[in-house]
Amino acid sequence: MIVRDYRESDWPQVWAIVQQVVRAADTFPFDPAMTEAQARSIWLEAPPGRTVVAAEGDRVLGTAKMGANRGGPGAHISTASFMVAENERGHGVGSALCRDATGWAQLQGYAGMQFNAVVETNRGAVAVYERQGFQVLGTVPRAFEHPSLGRVGLHLMYREF
Amino acid sequence: MIVRDYRESDWPQVWAIVQQVVRAADTFPFDPAMTEAQARSIWLEAPPGRTVVAAEGDRVLGTAKMGANRGGPGAHISTASFMVAENERGHGVGSALCRDATGWAQLQGYAGMQFNAVVETNRGAVAVYERQGFQVLGTVPRAFEHPSLGRVGLHLMYREF
Repeated sequence: MIVRDYRESDWPQVWAIVQQVVRAADTFPFDPAMTEAQARSIWLEAPPGRTVVAAEGDRVLGTAKMGANRGGPGAHISTASFMVAENERGHGVGSALCRDATGWAQLQGYAGMQFNAVVETNRGAVAVYERQGFQVLGTVPRAFEHPSLGRVGLHLMYREF
Repeated sequence: MIVRDYRESDWPQVWAIVQQVVRAADTFPFDPAMTEAQARSIWLEAPPGRTVVAAEGDRVLGTAKMGANRGGPGAHISTASFMVAENERGHGVGSALCRDATGWAQLQGYAGMQFNAVVETNRGAVAVYERQGFQVLGTVPRAFEHPSLGRVGLHLMYREF
């Protein structure tokens, strides 16, 4: 598996992953009925941001997007989002994407990386982030309507570089 | 002073306030070089969101925008932003706008209101929010480049309804 820059021919596979993730509605605060056009505009970052895929040959296993978390006086902190195909989870794809994103952000000169809304019951993701040096700085209680668990918290996670 | 829905004839005065606030670059993580078109697209919320002004007769003293903080499974938490004209600060305009926003959000059925990036040195705003029941849930250290104080923290503040 390698992590590389997104190219236009990846779109059908990236869209399939985005659709799967938003429809499950258990990890992202995105509209589950998101259209393909909305997904393109949300997920494909124009420079200075960046979108990547984790791929094995022609197969896309996961995808990430990254860039500045805020504008103006907040633009020195980066953010990133990660999605892994359902049947590719638990094999280090998310970890590889997260490592790639933090490495990229450090090279770009960002001072840290912030995740704005990590669903607290998404334990796999929280564990990946904590292993890579992120901490929970706060949790908004009951801010995410989980399809089976009810309202659960959203973590603000952060790592300084 | 009354707080009422924004109307198109307010724009010149609203834009003057937005421009003043983003140029000062000490309270909002927005690009200080924001254009008028960008300001319109950021500040004027289409329904189900809402933009209001605090006005005394024809004079606009401050403005606020509000709506859902996130999409899909996060759409039951609201957010809002407030800007007060420089020479109208300290007279309760921000408080009136905040009271209006939380009242509106409760009527709309939101479960709480979240402020994603309150500059910790903006003590006036923090005090207004705390008086109206908001708490700091976490602070991202050094996430805001203040023009005179250097890098200061950004609070995540929250109030459950």
